[in-house]
Amino acid sequence: MKLSIIKIGGNVIENKEELSKFLKAFSELKGPKILVHGGGKLATKLGTRLGIKSKLIDGRRITDEESLGLITMVYAGLVNKNIVAELQSHDCNAIGLSGADGDTIQAHKRPVKDIDYGYAGDVDGVSTKTIAKLLEAGLTPVFCAMTHDGKGQLLNTNADTIASELAIGMSGNYETILYYCFERKGVLLNVNDDDSVVKNIDSASYQDLLKQKIIADGMLPKMENCFHALQKNVHQVRIGDISMLDPKSTLFTTLTL
Amino acid sequence: MKLSIIKIGGNVIENKEELSKFLKAFSELKGPKILVHGGGKLATKLGTRLGIKSKLIDGRRITDEESLGLITMVYAGLVNKNIVAELQSHDCNAIGLSGADGDTIQAHKRPVKDIDYGYAGDVDGVSTKTIAKLLEAGLTPVFCAMTHDGKGQLLNTNADTIASELAIGMSGNYETILYYCFERKGVLLNVNDDDSVVKNIDSASYQDLLKQKIIADGMLPKMENCFHALQKNVHQVRIGDISMLDPKSTLFTTLTL
Repeated sequence: MKLSIIKIGGNVIENKEELSKFLKAFSELKGPKILVHGGGKLATKLGTRLGIKSKLIDGRRITDEESLGLITMVYAGLVNKNIVAELQSHDCNAIGLSGADGDTIQAHKRPVKDIDYGYAGDVDGVSTKTIAKLLEAGLTPVFCAMTHDGKGQLLNTNADTIASELAIGMSGNYETILYYCFERKGVLLNVNDDDSVVKNIDSASYQDLLKQKIIADGMLPKMENCFHALQKNVHQVRIGDISMLDPKSTLFTTLTL
Repeated sequence: MKLSIIKIGGNVIENKEELSKFLKAFSELKGPKILVHGGGKLATKLGTRLGIKSKLIDGRRITDEESLGLITMVYAGLVNKNIVAELQSHDCNAIGLSGADGDTIQAHKRPVKDIDYGYAGDVDGVSTKTIAKLLEAGLTPVFCAMTHDGKGQLLNTNADTIASELAIGMSGNYETILYYCFERKGVLLNVNDDDSVVKNIDSASYQDLLKQKIIADGMLPKMENCFHALQKNVHQVRIGDISMLDPKSTLFTTLTL
């Protein structure tokens, strides 16, 4: 059976209208599905109001105790529950989760090397049995970007990573399709032309795109993450904007091995 | 089969040490169980930091849009997820929920009569099937004091009410025992003597206690709520402090019809 795992980016969460459009499209998606979200910019905004400074290195949050409280409120509370309530209005029986809920995602605090990321969690595993039971009960899990260490500690984990680890974990039971929704229509040949989408990328053409420097900067870790998932039995990865959830849409990038 | 539904009061949530003691005892409780919590005082504290004034009438929050955001962050985020993570450390497979999650608790916005309570929700029903499926999957639901109207609106609902509505709803499938944990050892004959606990109250002796004005003020709505639950097939209600979770404890008040 197919399972769709969709990660939405900060730009969708930030914009109420865009989010509503996305949630409607998501609710209409057939078959079992999982949604994954972060909420970094909203956390930074609330932090400013509370006098908590957000420290980011290469886009990754340094999560001290105050920041952890902040993201627990914003990711698991404000963002997650509003998404769940809105999905319910579209008859999508959503259930909001952090990785601590149902012990669904186990992680450990990232060891300190050059940088101390604080309460950042690197994923150890996913409770596929529990997640499968929720899906079989007709529920649609909505994961925020948090995990736990099983010893009582919540941890901040990148939403892209959570989406790929969930897809990898569920690939034993399902034919998983991993969607990364972001602000562009896919991987672009020309960053200034939104229609220059590379429709298909496989391992060989990926190497070409790397050589031509078409994939660089921020796109690079995203793509590495995608190919890692494909190597771990994820069936397919799709990258594009929210229009790719439309069954008629063909303008997005599909990645296969 | 027995089902224990335990509501913890603000005094337990406020105090980290008390909360840890309670969560340990809760995790050791045998059989299927559900935890219900609020977090009003923590929400008020965060509100003060954010410049959001909490308006309370007779202990009930007037929930405007800002306050709703506040309690969504504190109840469903901060308090709920920290409880879930700590229960996981005691091998209790907790899953945190608002009433929107899995459409578990349906409510409607309280109609405006004398007072406009804002986004306050009066409970319409409980999805017993979904909750039973979670329990059968070995999960322990942890409910925060929030519901939803099914049209995308989250609502603030009193935690005592959520606990009794859950107990009433689940009484068709289970022999439900509803525990109200608060700061005292039970209903006291003499408020200045913490050991003067009335061990058993039934409908007849309740009327006597009312006549003698032993039950008055803040205790009155709590007791009305308990007898309402008993009339709707809840098997037993227990009132006391966290020590009543100890299987050896006998110092608490038991209410039956």
